[in-house]
Amino acid sequence: MTQFSLPLPLSAVRLTDALWKRENELVRREVIPYQWEALNDRVEGAAPSFFVHNMRAAARAAAARRAGRFVPRRAASGMVTQPDGQTPDPDTFYGWVFQDSDGYKWIEAVSYQLIQQPDEQLRQTAQQAVDLICAAQEADGYLDTFYSLTDISAAFSNLRDHHELYCFGHLAEAAVAWKEATGQTDLLDAACRFARCISRRFGPNLERGCPGHEIAEMALFRLYEATGDTAYRDLSCFFLDVRGTEPSTFALEENRRRAGEGLPPLPVTASRYAYHQADRPVRDTQEARGHAVRQMYLAAGMADEARLKDDRPMREACERLWRSVTREKMYVTGGVGATHLGEAFSLPYDLPSDTAYAETCAAIGLCFFARRMLQLNPVSEYADVMERALYNAVLSGMALDGKSFFYVNPLEADPLYCREDQRLSHVRPVRQKWFGCACCPPNIARFLSSLGAYAGTHTEDTLYFHLYIAQEMNVSLGGKELRLSLDADLTESGRVRLTVLSGAASGTLAFRLPGWADGYSLNTSFGACEPALKGGYLYLTRPWQKGDTLSFDFSMPIRLLMADSRVRELTGQVCFVRGPFVFCAESTDNGPGLHLLRVPADAETHAVPGRTEMAGLSLPSLQVPAFRVTPEEDGPLYPSAAQKERLSPVTLSLIPYFAWSNRGESEMRVWLPRTSPESSR
Amino acid sequence: MTQFSLPLPLSAVRLTDALWKRENELVRREVIPYQWEALNDRVEGAAPSFFVHNMRAAARAAAARRAGRFVPRRAASGMVTQPDGQTPDPDTFYGWVFQDSDGYKWIEAVSYQLIQQPDEQLRQTAQQAVDLICAAQEADGYLDTFYSLTDISAAFSNLRDHHELYCFGHLAEAAVAWKEATGQTDLLDAACRFARCISRRFGPNLERGCPGHEIAEMALFRLYEATGDTAYRDLSCFFLDVRGTEPSTFALEENRRRAGEGLPPLPVTASRYAYHQADRPVRDTQEARGHAVRQMYLAAGMADEARLKDDRPMREACERLWRSVTREKMYVTGGVGATHLGEAFSLPYDLPSDTAYAETCAAIGLCFFARRMLQLNPVSEYADVMERALYNAVLSGMALDGKSFFYVNPLEADPLYCREDQRLSHVRPVRQKWFGCACCPPNIARFLSSLGAYAGTHTEDTLYFHLYIAQEMNVSLGGKELRLSLDADLTESGRVRLTVLSGAASGTLAFRLPGWADGYSLNTSFGACEPALKGGYLYLTRPWQKGDTLSFDFSMPIRLLMADSRVRELTGQVCFVRGPFVFCAESTDNGPGLHLLRVPADAETHAVPGRTEMAGLSLPSLQVPAFRVTPEEDGPLYPSAAQKERLSPVTLSLIPYFAWSNRGESEMRVWLPRTSPESSR
Repeated sequence: MTQFSLPLPLSAVRLTDALWKRENELVRREVIPYQWEALNDRVEGAAPSFFVHNMRAAARAAAARRAGRFVPRRAASGMVTQPDGQTPDPDTFYGWVFQDSDGYKWIEAVSYQLIQQPDEQLRQTAQQAVDLICAAQEADGYLDTFYSLTDISAAFSNLRDHHELYCFGHLAEAAVAWKEATGQTDLLDAACRFARCISRRFGPNLERGCPGHEIAEMALFRLYEATGDTAYRDLSCFFLDVRGTEPSTFALEENRRRAGEGLPPLPVTASRYAYHQADRPVRDTQEARGHAVRQMYLAAGMADEARLKDDRPMREACERLWRSVTREKMYVTGGVGATHLGEAFSLPYDLPSDTAYAETCAAIGLCFFARRMLQLNPVSEYADVMERALYNAVLSGMALDGKSFFYVNPLEADPLYCREDQRLSHVRPVRQKWFGCACCPPNIARFLSSLGAYAGTHTEDTLYFHLYIAQEMNVSLGGKELRLSLDADLTESGRVRLTVLSGAASGTLAFRLPGWADGYSLNTSFGACEPALKGGYLYLTRPWQKGDTLSFDFSMPIRLLMADSRVRELTGQVCFVRGPFVFCAESTDNGPGLHLLRVPADAETHAVPGRTEMAGLSLPSLQVPAFRVTPEEDGPLYPSAAQKERLSPVTLSLIPYFAWSNRGESEMRVWLPRTSPESSR
Repeated sequence: MTQFSLPLPLSAVRLTDALWKRENELVRREVIPYQWEALNDRVEGAAPSFFVHNMRAAARAAAARRAGRFVPRRAASGMVTQPDGQTPDPDTFYGWVFQDSDGYKWIEAVSYQLIQQPDEQLRQTAQQAVDLICAAQEADGYLDTFYSLTDISAAFSNLRDHHELYCFGHLAEAAVAWKEATGQTDLLDAACRFARCISRRFGPNLERGCPGHEIAEMALFRLYEATGDTAYRDLSCFFLDVRGTEPSTFALEENRRRAGEGLPPLPVTASRYAYHQADRPVRDTQEARGHAVRQMYLAAGMADEARLKDDRPMREACERLWRSVTREKMYVTGGVGATHLGEAFSLPYDLPSDTAYAETCAAIGLCFFARRMLQLNPVSEYADVMERALYNAVLSGMALDGKSFFYVNPLEADPLYCREDQRLSHVRPVRQKWFGCACCPPNIARFLSSLGAYAGTHTEDTLYFHLYIAQEMNVSLGGKELRLSLDADLTESGRVRLTVLSGAASGTLAFRLPGWADGYSLNTSFGACEPALKGGYLYLTRPWQKGDTLSFDFSMPIRLLMADSRVRELTGQVCFVRGPFVFCAESTDNGPGLHLLRVPADAETHAVPGRTEMAGLSLPSLQVPAFRVTPEEDGPLYPSAAQKERLSPVTLSLIPYFAWSNRGESEMRVWLPRTSPESSR
């Protein structure tokens, strides 16, 4: 069996990175306490979560059911219940059907934080949530407050829309993290009981079915890796195998519901379910389609399967999917999902900047997928994309003070248009405190809290450095322990220094050559070495010992990028990147009317890197000699193209994309028009 | 009082123009008979109109009401009734609340055709419709089948949404045309009775109210000009004056309905009604806003008022509105209404090509407005815009065979995107046979049938030539009659020849210098003359007599246009115009992937005019040396901007915009990217 790499356990890693340590601490200090208040519906002006409410109610319901005296409050109608300003009834389910996942994500984030830094008070708070969840579990292991509180006989009858397998997936992720953090098996036992409940219903010789919103796939593989119980792996494989096969399980479900209502059946062809990635068997995937978060979570599960089963056709499907995403359907920020209709992937090369969806959760999903592709095959392209998404489309999801969040991450925004133009009703020019559908804030929290598990992966004798995030780590190489320190600050430069702090071991350290560097120098404390280059990684094999140091200086030029000519929205436009950062212009720095800026062809060579302070954080910036068009105030709307645009020289101030909208409302653009050949200067 | 000009009566004009005579005949031969079938719900596969059905039912209802035995079929709920495949109940109202207007527009079109060419069979068919309408009129003059068939006591209670004043407006327009065509006053009497019915309810000392969908304003002025009865003029002035004043009449209406339902009142501020152009008094208009057709119809009514009352503040409001439309909110085709949400004007300079709405009716409305501005003030800019809209955004609304229609007229279309991308669900890549909301096809029919009334206007001693549409005309100049022949074919060249066929008269002929000409030569049969130039018109004053000829040769260069730099969607893009025609590229001629075409800076000088045959019509075309980008098949999605696009020389074949989508499904683009400064050739 091929040797695939595994992420470093979070417990073996300690972040020291200027940017990411801060973000991680922001999550602990700001996001996690705030979210606990949100889960308890104690945040004024924010849409209530109902997590704690629903769990308490479900715990009473589960107890009542055991005692044979449960009375459902309302029938499971598939409708979302939202209160209308009255006091919630204590035994009624409220919120979206997937509301349970809010709390699971929070517990997962708390767990990662506890692994990094013990905090007894936080642990006790999380224990309350865990206890609530365990109490809400039914005798047979079923655990979903929507059906527990309405009509549990209808459980699993609407996998397409009702997200109980999605909630299960988040429960399992949280449970494994909670066990890793605390050593306690309470939540893990609950997750395993629920998994067994699911596998008593669905399987090769049982009912066909698969999750409407994926995540259970990767969660079950994680449960398998945490417990060694192959039943979880096999259930996940079943879900992957049944997905997209004929007759469509989603259509069959729907027809059962329709039959109950006396309606005629609909066609059971899978092709209707592209939104759910269920239009064809997953191994036949040719293109990223449908709801972007779902597609990315499915891809992560597919890559897990390819690794755990060494499944070549599945791996090839993953590679096709990767190619579709990264060559045809990804924003330069690493954002994915170009259309708000269905929060979905659009057609190849359809990547509009202003109406972009680019949901924060989808970019996180792309990182899940990329890390797993790296585990399968350490090729730097995967890490380049993961890094691009992480430093841009993911990080933009959270304000620099950790107190507000973007769900949608456009590459061009004008507050006036966002307010006035209903076609942009999904785009907010400033981050929001919380969302009724609160998937993104807790997803950012759990992802950023687990970042240590993304920077490096290892096999028995090789340690891979995928991301240059400064950290200390304990690793095992060829069975011997090493303590390493990776020093880097990509907000400053491409200088990366590895020091062996203690231990001695023989084996290979593999360093990614970042796609953004056009060269590098390498200095070592142990003299010349002859590294092997493969897949964009430099492999250095030797006996390592305390005091060894190794310094890379990756060049970090300012680069001017354009888009593939098939991206029609970006013809004639350019953007700036440096290192992992995509830059953007804000009107706060550049005045209103960013579409009037023009970037000359030689901008790349004349741009100057600088620094800017924002929210106490020192960020890279760029100063670029450029132009601004002065419109003809009394000119015709359509003048002769021979007329030269009147250009005035300006110095563009660009900031990292992720930092936009942290200084109040502002226009923002990532892509800026080039000067035209006819421009006068 | 200032002397304003009046349009030539249609009876004085005979079209001879190669293009427009054909279009006019297409309307008579194809559109009018087809629409009669549609009005009778006899077109298979098309949404039924219910015009004849509703009129018949209303005639029975009116008779029953007179006899005191009417039983309403259903209450007026404000909801649209649509049948569901069953046989319509003979006494039930079906269709939209404004369905009556379908038939009125048809009668208006028929009337214009009869003026141009007697046709006894057509006249008899139209008489049937007229008789039906007259029979449907209530004893008090009220005439609206929706309320007649439901709850007539609720008549006029929802002017905002229920379009009865809109239907009245179309009735009045039809009635005046029918009288002009046949000499009969039957329909005119009905319209006048309805007008008096309205003015018994609304007026300065009566109820406040104004039309939700404008047209009654210009129709009432027309009724006044046709009958001399100032009551109609005054009612129109009342509607204009009350519009947009506080408290909003639309809000008051709504609150009366809400009170009936026991709901609390809403704020009565006018600012909520920008969609209806009722957010401020019309004399305070600063900007074109809201539903584009309504805004244009209102503008036409405002311009009528400015003329008939010599109202300076109203004229200034019209001029501000004109400027807002033509300097900030008009497509290069003359299309208006950039957003499908509300079929409305968007923000200034927001003119996206692919999601454009640019409804055919709105472009017709712009022509109504422009002709009236010309009557107020003969300035060539008004005629330039009218001509641009007519030859492009209006004409594109009808197929070259007169058998299918565009409601929406985008400037960029890709059939794949139209099918797959729900954000473009309003855009059709091919014309449709009929629409459930069938405003555009009959509107094109009535407008094209009355084109003779748009080419020229006159005062007592001056005849203005606004459009160079070939025609013969009888005019009165200084009280003497002249018969003139204007020869022109703008599809061929800018050569225009005026001949005095008969008569003798002294006075002024004023010829527009078209904005598309950068020069002209003038030859006359009477030797040198010294024309005066004013407002873009050449004024020639002399005694005219039989045999006089006058030949202009307006240069008609191929022009490459760009957009004002504030139109962000069009940065770096150019389009071709020649004479009145905007050109476009179709994939039928240029292969798929029109966004990969690149227009070099010198395209204007190297482009060659040609001819192309389509549907038996000889059309102008352009051949332009240009380039096509070859995408990098295995390249990154975001390459370095220093990388040169790989360009291959191609010859672009461009056709007139109005003729697109007449050869099956095709990609189409008006605006094409320029070559970038870095392009290799």
